[in-house]
Amino acid sequence: MSKLENKLNLPLKAVSLKQVTIQDDFWSSREKNVIETVVPYQWKALNDEIPGAEPSHTIENFRLAAGEAEGEYYGMVFQDSDLGKWLETVGFVLSGRRDPELESIADNVIDLLGRAQQPDGYLNTYYIVKEPNARWTNLRDNHELYCAGHLMEASVAYYEATGKRKFLNIMSRYADYIATVFGDEPGKKRGYDGHPEVELALVKLYQATGERKYLDLSKFFIDERGQKPHFFDQEANERDESEVPARGKKKREYDYFQAHLPVREQKTAEGHAVRAVYLYSAMADLAVDYNDDSLLQACKQLWNDVVRRKMYVTGGIGSSEYEERFTVPFDLPNNRAYTETCAAIGLMFWAQRMLQIEKDREYADVMELALYNGVLSGISLDGKSYFYVNPLEVWPATANFRHDMSTVKVTRQPWFGCACCPPNIARLIASLGQYIYSKNDSDRELYVHLYIGSKLELEIDGHRVQVTQQANYPWNGQVSLELTLEQSADFAVAVRVPGWCRNAAITVNGQETDISQQEKGYVKIQRTWQNGDRIELVMDMPVEIVHPHPNLRENAGKVALQRGPVVYCLEEEDNGPNLQDIVLPSDAEFDVHFEKGLFGGVSVLTGSGLRSEVQAGDEHKLYTTQAFDKVAAPLKAIPYFAWSNRTPGEMTVWIRNHN
Amino acid sequence: MSKLENKLNLPLKAVSLKQVTIQDDFWSSREKNVIETVVPYQWKALNDEIPGAEPSHTIENFRLAAGEAEGEYYGMVFQDSDLGKWLETVGFVLSGRRDPELESIADNVIDLLGRAQQPDGYLNTYYIVKEPNARWTNLRDNHELYCAGHLMEASVAYYEATGKRKFLNIMSRYADYIATVFGDEPGKKRGYDGHPEVELALVKLYQATGERKYLDLSKFFIDERGQKPHFFDQEANERDESEVPARGKKKREYDYFQAHLPVREQKTAEGHAVRAVYLYSAMADLAVDYNDDSLLQACKQLWNDVVRRKMYVTGGIGSSEYEERFTVPFDLPNNRAYTETCAAIGLMFWAQRMLQIEKDREYADVMELALYNGVLSGISLDGKSYFYVNPLEVWPATANFRHDMSTVKVTRQPWFGCACCPPNIARLIASLGQYIYSKNDSDRELYVHLYIGSKLELEIDGHRVQVTQQANYPWNGQVSLELTLEQSADFAVAVRVPGWCRNAAITVNGQETDISQQEKGYVKIQRTWQNGDRIELVMDMPVEIVHPHPNLRENAGKVALQRGPVVYCLEEEDNGPNLQDIVLPSDAEFDVHFEKGLFGGVSVLTGSGLRSEVQAGDEHKLYTTQAFDKVAAPLKAIPYFAWSNRTPGEMTVWIRNHN
Repeated sequence: MSKLENKLNLPLKAVSLKQVTIQDDFWSSREKNVIETVVPYQWKALNDEIPGAEPSHTIENFRLAAGEAEGEYYGMVFQDSDLGKWLETVGFVLSGRRDPELESIADNVIDLLGRAQQPDGYLNTYYIVKEPNARWTNLRDNHELYCAGHLMEASVAYYEATGKRKFLNIMSRYADYIATVFGDEPGKKRGYDGHPEVELALVKLYQATGERKYLDLSKFFIDERGQKPHFFDQEANERDESEVPARGKKKREYDYFQAHLPVREQKTAEGHAVRAVYLYSAMADLAVDYNDDSLLQACKQLWNDVVRRKMYVTGGIGSSEYEERFTVPFDLPNNRAYTETCAAIGLMFWAQRMLQIEKDREYADVMELALYNGVLSGISLDGKSYFYVNPLEVWPATANFRHDMSTVKVTRQPWFGCACCPPNIARLIASLGQYIYSKNDSDRELYVHLYIGSKLELEIDGHRVQVTQQANYPWNGQVSLELTLEQSADFAVAVRVPGWCRNAAITVNGQETDISQQEKGYVKIQRTWQNGDRIELVMDMPVEIVHPHPNLRENAGKVALQRGPVVYCLEEEDNGPNLQDIVLPSDAEFDVHFEKGLFGGVSVLTGSGLRSEVQAGDEHKLYTTQAFDKVAAPLKAIPYFAWSNRTPGEMTVWIRNHN
Repeated sequence: MSKLENKLNLPLKAVSLKQVTIQDDFWSSREKNVIETVVPYQWKALNDEIPGAEPSHTIENFRLAAGEAEGEYYGMVFQDSDLGKWLETVGFVLSGRRDPELESIADNVIDLLGRAQQPDGYLNTYYIVKEPNARWTNLRDNHELYCAGHLMEASVAYYEATGKRKFLNIMSRYADYIATVFGDEPGKKRGYDGHPEVELALVKLYQATGERKYLDLSKFFIDERGQKPHFFDQEANERDESEVPARGKKKREYDYFQAHLPVREQKTAEGHAVRAVYLYSAMADLAVDYNDDSLLQACKQLWNDVVRRKMYVTGGIGSSEYEERFTVPFDLPNNRAYTETCAAIGLMFWAQRMLQIEKDREYADVMELALYNGVLSGISLDGKSYFYVNPLEVWPATANFRHDMSTVKVTRQPWFGCACCPPNIARLIASLGQYIYSKNDSDRELYVHLYIGSKLELEIDGHRVQVTQQANYPWNGQVSLELTLEQSADFAVAVRVPGWCRNAAITVNGQETDISQQEKGYVKIQRTWQNGDRIELVMDMPVEIVHPHPNLRENAGKVALQRGPVVYCLEEEDNGPNLQDIVLPSDAEFDVHFEKGLFGGVSVLTGSGLRSEVQAGDEHKLYTTQAFDKVAAPLKAIPYFAWSNRTPGEMTVWIRNHN
């Protein structure tokens, strides 16, 4: 195994959730929404208590597995993961506040998990209830390790929040058992799951327990992936499946599962986008823990492929509904974008890990871009409806009619119709605190990645430090960081100047700091800090006209509007129909103003464009040799994440422009 | 039934194929190709004599039906129609020349048809061989009348070409039998076929035989269509099918079959595009024959819906691969166009019929547009490969990868993989002579619709007239019509000034004619014609920049290039990759020159556009706030119909433009 080139350049560690309290105009209400609405609602859903909703059966499946109920297994083969995501969210919620009632519900369901666990440690309700003799016979399709992974993540979050070890012990026992089944020793399976997830979860389990064997098991799965002879073929042969795929589905290619090549040989992002970024996240984790430069280089190449060739301007990824997958470079259709909310969330997971290794703002830029756009668009303002698919352009008449656009929804769908994205977005928001700061103990550095009002408590070099961040982000580029120290201390605060920002200034206690000496977008302020020291960051935040690379054929001749990290869109409600007819003059300018009453308060952009003057009789000209005259049209753009919260109608991110 | 408003405005009659001989630089080689290559090839295909091709089994099915072979039926349920289209093409071919060998092959297969015909007149090999007791049990799906219709059309063409009645008699007997099964009398089925075709065929059978009952049967089918209770439900109930659709298919909505409403109440073109235009063609026929204004008004409304809202600039129709159907107004995606070749052919059928009724050049314009673009693009220059689907834009990497573009082919496919479009395009080309001229006996008028070098023999008011048309169309706008008469005669020659032509001049024997007195685009020259009189038409044929209606969202900010009736496109072979990056300046001009060696000789357009200057390092900017510089780029456009006859690559009809 090759080593990281520069061993001294030790990676950062994200500051843990418990140390951060969010107090932010933009995010606190969203966090509250998750805590007060989403978590209780999802608990009811897991218990089949939502009138009119399709039953989830998740809790009932665990009762069946524990022998405490009679009946049949019901639900998807990966139904257990819904409980995992919910319990993980509960863990995140409890890390910031006491909630004895919620904790008691969680403890009870954890007890149930314990009773459902088999004597050997196994814990998967589908196989326990439905196919007790068929464990580990279809890793490719049946999400057995995927479910284990989500429960492991949950157990770590719950342990870190509450200090209670029961759930962690249950999942450690399960992991111990898994390690007896998989491995390169004789008699063990040299396999891995069709849906990566357990790999990153095992890293968390290692971090929580200190048990290196979990890390080794994760590395085993990563190392095996894509090796020949192909494990999915071997297990299919053992199932006597030969050429016929499971459950009548078209046989998938290996790349759907990111199993077409050993991971270190993968240079391009292929297949199912969520699976891909979950896998890459684990690869980044292991690159650090094993000091494995070959894994890091693979991550960097994959990163470049995603962000330079396969990422929407919103941070959305995965442009094909079929197989929810990456396609070919620069194939980013706007009105047929798939851009699953979970994929944008997974991109944040991966970006966050890369950021700890490389301390390069590009990772934070992408993480922030996905957060404020491709992720946040997935949930309605009231937290009660969700997009799986986040198109960048919608014509309702066409989207509602065309069969090849059937996954594009014009309005968000209620929770109970869904299974994966809503709990994923809930756990993301509930854990947002851990994306804001990192620290590097050996170099005594504190990194500030995101501008979210918050209070951070940490120790640097033995000194207790409290950082109070105040911001009115993403609407305004002024951020202050106030330090509270028991005694003065030497350390560095590295402040990110975002990639979107062309002009920034930083002062410390009112004294301007030279920001020209950035390291990959971070201004490192090294000094002996005193109690009450105050860093002020002022970022110019004009409206930016964003041009696509010429290879982005779908956007040729169009521009997007962005301000700070927020990408804007036009909606029919503000601009009338036929948004594609609107063209921006080359000298287009936009005013910014904050509309308090709109979408809970957002900055909107107003300006002027041109649109065609259609006169009586013009309906007789589908094609004409006479160009239509243009007339001025006032324009109003709203944040993309807020679209489809009013009357359903057209929407577009990309706007025509004379360039 | 309402009557036509103006009974005096009697419709034109298309001049029959036998009276026209094409002698034209552009078309004669294509006609020859059909006669010498396509017809023999297709005969081999019908007889399963193409090595490596999937068997057609069509002739063998007729042998089975005749009790002259042993085995199983094989092929689609509508396999008989392939023989129908082939025999119709043979009829068209034989109407222009003697070919004893071909005629003998046809006579033999007609004899076989006669032996396969059942004692009661029934003739459908699928049901005779495979389900002898299930005739007329699934009109919705099983194409029984559709197959009958194609064989009827063939019998008429063969009779008109050869004067031999045998085939006509076979099909008349079949039609007589069908009339005993269907009708509004008690005990008869009040049904109609899922795929319209027999309706227009019965009109032809009536015209050939003079038997009005065939016209009445056609009218019965047209009148019944879409009535409630719904026939397709009734027959499904009789099949005990209830909700389960035939052959495991998703239940189709009535509009797929144009059976959602009685035809006179249909205002918008819905469903399967080929079915629609076949239906509308029969409606236009019957509007004339029954003097039925309600049918005509329905046709006109449907026509407006198609050509003002649902037609591509190439004359292609049907923008959705799913159900090969019309969708919603202005939904005309270029790279996902379906635009089946057969649908453009069917649009010509319909346009030709409307033209006879209304004498309005718009119908001829659309007929010509479809012919030179959406139809002709369906066949390769060598006549050996075919497009079903005629996209207006192709990015091969994307089209070859994306599942939702699987029907978009980057290159034409060989004959034997196909079933419907190749024989349809063959019969269209073989019968092109009947689209050029019409006459109106009562008003002593000869209409000239298309400019195709040809010799026409006809009688007007008892006078034998020969018209020799010379043209170098579509490359050149100069046309001459020379009249040969035995003696002078009074009649009118109505000359079409195409909609694409802004400036034309007409002389008679060198004397300029006032062309301002056009009637719906036709300049009617009324005079006492002498032998040797010569009409010269000169149409300016500059390169036109075609603008889309602002509602055509997919084309916003783009233009198409057209010269005469020919729509142009850019191909990667001439212009390099990334065609969407190319932008035309607002003052773009193009030179025209004829390239003799290219595609058998075509006029190409050359000009200059702009494209982005991508420099080293620019691959790092998927999105940037800096617009890319533009550099001049020479452009070369070729006729759209000729695309994909060289190296496979990108193609686009619509080009960005600053408008």
